[in-house]
Amino acid sequence: MTGEFERIRRIVEVLGAQAYGIGDDCAVLAPGPGQLVASTDASVGGIHFRLDWIGHREAGWRAAAAALSDLAAEGAAPAALLAAVGVPASASDAELVAVMQGVGDAASSAGAVVAGGDLTGGPTWSVTITVLGWAERPVTRAGARPGDGLWVTGRLGAARAALAAWRHGDQPAAEAREAFAHPVPRIEAGQWLAAHAAGAMIDLSDGLGGDARHLAESSGVAIDIELGRVPRSPACDEEARRLGVPPEQFAAEGGEDYELLATLPPEFGADDAASFARECRLALTRVGTVRYGQGVRASLAGRPLSLAGYEHFR
Amino acid sequence: MTGEFERIRRIVEVLGAQAYGIGDDCAVLAPGPGQLVASTDASVGGIHFRLDWIGHREAGWRAAAAALSDLAAEGAAPAALLAAVGVPASASDAELVAVMQGVGDAASSAGAVVAGGDLTGGPTWSVTITVLGWAERPVTRAGARPGDGLWVTGRLGAARAALAAWRHGDQPAAEAREAFAHPVPRIEAGQWLAAHAAGAMIDLSDGLGGDARHLAESSGVAIDIELGRVPRSPACDEEARRLGVPPEQFAAEGGEDYELLATLPPEFGADDAASFARECRLALTRVGTVRYGQGVRASLAGRPLSLAGYEHFR
Repeated sequence: MTGEFERIRRIVEVLGAQAYGIGDDCAVLAPGPGQLVASTDASVGGIHFRLDWIGHREAGWRAAAAALSDLAAEGAAPAALLAAVGVPASASDAELVAVMQGVGDAASSAGAVVAGGDLTGGPTWSVTITVLGWAERPVTRAGARPGDGLWVTGRLGAARAALAAWRHGDQPAAEAREAFAHPVPRIEAGQWLAAHAAGAMIDLSDGLGGDARHLAESSGVAIDIELGRVPRSPACDEEARRLGVPPEQFAAEGGEDYELLATLPPEFGADDAASFARECRLALTRVGTVRYGQGVRASLAGRPLSLAGYEHFR
Repeated sequence: MTGEFERIRRIVEVLGAQAYGIGDDCAVLAPGPGQLVASTDASVGGIHFRLDWIGHREAGWRAAAAALSDLAAEGAAPAALLAAVGVPASASDAELVAVMQGVGDAASSAGAVVAGGDLTGGPTWSVTITVLGWAERPVTRAGARPGDGLWVTGRLGAARAALAAWRHGDQPAAEAREAFAHPVPRIEAGQWLAAHAAGAMIDLSDGLGGDARHLAESSGVAIDIELGRVPRSPACDEEARRLGVPPEQFAAEGGEDYELLATLPPEFGADDAASFARECRLALTRVGTVRYGQGVRASLAGRPLSLAGYEHFR
């Protein structure tokens, strides 16, 4: 193991143009248009990822993508990220470089640079990413209004399917593995939705049930979800069947899909969703409705179904 | 132990006006004047602090102060911080709240709000703070010019004296303990120096020897330090004597003082330093000179003395 400063030098060298201005006390960034939008997100080995399931580069990508997903959910344009990495004493320089390559790949895929960070020792791998972006009209969780439609991007349940397979000692299906190891933050989708009058938005890290609850609480509204409408990945259905859980429930309770959940005005319809799909190359599906009241009511084939939350904290 | 969301609710309640906008995917902040300045800094239990040495609230303060010190070294005005806290399973809610109270105290002492964060489980306490601020004229490490004077704020060596005492199983002197447990980021001093033509600036986290080296490398210059001029805390002298190390060397090799090291134009003199002392209620002492060349040459009573670096990384 080499020292801290030599490791930083090597990371900056490998990141090349993905890094910007590393090596000073602070990153210095020109202001962008609108408001500054910032979020911090920690990924801890053994809790958020396991290195016997995914590789070091994937762990770095996943940590950065999860943080960038928060910018997507605000409708923001990413500018930069800072990476604080806790490195166990047993780690090699090559492993650390791989983690940071994953971070750099995720940053540049989202139009952001790696502008700084901090390396420390630690009992386990941890990758804490702070993302910085700009938004002319940041979309919070608090703007849902009764009558709005509830919409979701992409398809749900694949990341949970991967976790379920690993936990049973199996290899997940390729699609499920990819969803867990290489989630794509929905940056373009978030900006599109912000520009098309999204009232409230959140990214699906705690699962559709849990995140709809956050959105309903922040907005002071009730949310009805029709689980039959929720788009699911094929991998999700397969894994749910094996576990004897209705696939609709499996998908809605799974976390870490990093799709976006947004409320849109009542007049937003199928034609608008088709425009979104064409421009963002991603499905946008209506899965429910915002109502007066509080709480989340999910139903499947007309019958109520209670959704468990998904807490990462252990 | 309660769940993640209940813990966040409790923290927001206790922080009161020190917190701002917590609970969304992102913090949303109005842009300030000048450039955005950002830095992230991890404090890990057992590496950067020990909870048998300092309390939970002190650990939170210290983690936030260390990060805010990076803003000070850029001459920036702090605006907000984000706190990613890794909480061991054995931790109580009261301990977590105390850590965050320390973070909140440090933030508000520097004119910043706690604008967001992330709670995760982890094998040990860790507090990763990202600070955000604004600077009209950010001062990097790269602007030192031959002929400039090298100046340091405050007095050095007390934090190292505290560490040395604890490591020998003793209680540190009150001044030394305070320096380690409750460092004060030199925000006002940093802004004053930036406004008075500081060419380069860095905060002393790696020790005078190590940080002068960073500054010399970034600026492409050599730095001469007269160790006899370096202002020392009384606690430093006492501990150095006990260890049989020249106190001048002990102070210059100690890390984590969080004072500022700045280069100022040749014409900056004693009268200017007196103005600084009056306005910032802090000493400013000339300890060396910037030269053509490279590397750091320290001398004590006219004889060269090689300074060891101070690497936190273990």
